[in-house]
Amino acid sequence: MGTSRGHHASATAVLERCRELVRPALVEAVGRLHPWTGEMAAYALGWADTAGNPDSGGSEGKGVRQALAVLGAEAVGADSADAVPGAVAVELVHTFSLLHDDIMDADALRRQRPAVWKTYGTGPAVLAGDALLAQAVGGLAEARGPHAAAAVRCLCGTLNTLVSGQAQDLRFEHRPWYGPGAVGPEQYRVMAEHKTGALLGCAIALGAVLGGAPDSTVAALERAGRHLGLAFQAVDDILGVWGDPAVTGKPVHSDLRQGKKTYPVLAALAAGGRAARELGALLESTRTIDGETAEHAAALVEEAGGRTATREEALRQLDTARRTLHEAPLTYSAAQELDALFTHMLDRTW
Amino acid sequence: MGTSRGHHASATAVLERCRELVRPALVEAVGRLHPWTGEMAAYALGWADTAGNPDSGGSEGKGVRQALAVLGAEAVGADSADAVPGAVAVELVHTFSLLHDDIMDADALRRQRPAVWKTYGTGPAVLAGDALLAQAVGGLAEARGPHAAAAVRCLCGTLNTLVSGQAQDLRFEHRPWYGPGAVGPEQYRVMAEHKTGALLGCAIALGAVLGGAPDSTVAALERAGRHLGLAFQAVDDILGVWGDPAVTGKPVHSDLRQGKKTYPVLAALAAGGRAARELGALLESTRTIDGETAEHAAALVEEAGGRTATREEALRQLDTARRTLHEAPLTYSAAQELDALFTHMLDRTW
Repeated sequence: MGTSRGHHASATAVLERCRELVRPALVEAVGRLHPWTGEMAAYALGWADTAGNPDSGGSEGKGVRQALAVLGAEAVGADSADAVPGAVAVELVHTFSLLHDDIMDADALRRQRPAVWKTYGTGPAVLAGDALLAQAVGGLAEARGPHAAAAVRCLCGTLNTLVSGQAQDLRFEHRPWYGPGAVGPEQYRVMAEHKTGALLGCAIALGAVLGGAPDSTVAALERAGRHLGLAFQAVDDILGVWGDPAVTGKPVHSDLRQGKKTYPVLAALAAGGRAARELGALLESTRTIDGETAEHAAALVEEAGGRTATREEALRQLDTARRTLHEAPLTYSAAQELDALFTHMLDRTW
Repeated sequence: MGTSRGHHASATAVLERCRELVRPALVEAVGRLHPWTGEMAAYALGWADTAGNPDSGGSEGKGVRQALAVLGAEAVGADSADAVPGAVAVELVHTFSLLHDDIMDADALRRQRPAVWKTYGTGPAVLAGDALLAQAVGGLAEARGPHAAAAVRCLCGTLNTLVSGQAQDLRFEHRPWYGPGAVGPEQYRVMAEHKTGALLGCAIALGAVLGGAPDSTVAALERAGRHLGLAFQAVDDILGVWGDPAVTGKPVHSDLRQGKKTYPVLAALAAGGRAARELGALLESTRTIDGETAEHAAALVEEAGGRTATREEALRQLDTARRTLHEAPLTYSAAQELDALFTHMLDRTW
């Protein structure tokens, strides 16, 4: 997708600035964990390798969620420091969810390194996730200021939504590809909003809540983040089928090989027509999809319009996210930076 | 241990009364989960079998923690209804911790039934635990009344302690049985206070917090609950070595066979003398302890004084718990019921 260089430079600078602002509190939060779970957390965050040495391999995440929290506070005219407890909480929750989701999905790789459960074992990885979750809520509950209780309610509501989204996703596995009981694109969108959108929405909302914004502003920012999440997930789904293995770190046609019910496939099946019917028959006929079959399936998804539909979904959701952002009264420069960050998040080759 | 029949009858009635009081809110909380995680939660709570049918096999827990929460509120002169959000939260946290601990400890049985991970798979069991934890904190954060925020802080602090206790326990596995780096009885006590005592202390404290008690009363009740937890854990440890398999549902000498570092063994090793030295050599020499060796090891633990030391530890901690309870100004009948419940919790054959 083409985006201006200006957006990109601005977003990169914002991410950097927010990481620096939040880092001391995030380090302190991880430091409050039991040393062993702290070691696993540092590995999961990309700060350390398995020997506990600093990891300079670029395994650290961009910190999109902490940046959204900081910009959420700045956008409602509050001090960026007000957002820090919320920024720490959403980063810890994000790390928790990656850790536990990798166990549930049996994903052995995360950011080109072995997943925590692969490195430390399943039991320890469960524990490390629990520790991150407890610290996320606990740290926010200890935050000073008049808005801490509202922030905790906001985060807890999101946790329930997030876990429910993961449950929906895992249950999709047991549903047929077509016919009665099949997963439609609309049901997929609900799942993705819960699993991916809710935490992005919560990140911006938390910044605004901690910054003392009125409910209507908080709600608009949260909605914007949810649409952003849907756009982000749509791009992820495109990359899951057509992404370059050198970039994604996963085999080509990865999601098809694993039989994942993602938006491009569901949209293709829902479209009807010859290619959709052939795709449905192919997917129902086998549980293991090897290289050549996966390539053929990917071609059928494309022919049935699944790739185009997902591109359109991504662009539509990004557009809605940006429009929703502008519904609320926000400080100009933070709104610009949010807008740049939204666009930057979709600025991958798809 | 001999206790009066009066205590027993009173405690049984209290547990029954509190289960009835809390049940509707607990059912409602589980009902807010995704149906699939709700099904696993109902199984874990002993409400349903794996087909989702009501389980009448007596698999439901006694609900000690919810009762402690209710009595905590009554003891500070508050309405028992004030405690309900706290009672629900501690029962959900307890269920979460059993669920995840069984994964980490590879325990296949829980209350004479297959553990959740054995029945539903590890991934789903991780998810169900996450859902219970999120609902526990989220439900409490939504509680009305002026003390909800303090209650959330209390619960979150306990969650961090609980997870840290589990981490300490898992790390004990990697320590030697004797010599430098060995786990001493005092370190074991700290672990047990975190892993077992903290949630019992939190249960009573939450009731008192929600009932609007002053900090000093809350602190005394929490301390009492922690000592109760240490007494309870000591009895559990005795049953883990010498318990009747028909009652515990575990093989005879279960903890010794699994090489668990529990209080009787650590106290025996710390006592020194011939039996302690022989025990240490035996435990260091092998990772798998079969029937005859386990019987011999149990005899050595007893000979070195480990069983007596653990009995004394249980009685001393129970005594401290009861005395701590009486340090705070409490309503008479609730204090009596708490006392009876404390005694009842140790009223097993050991």
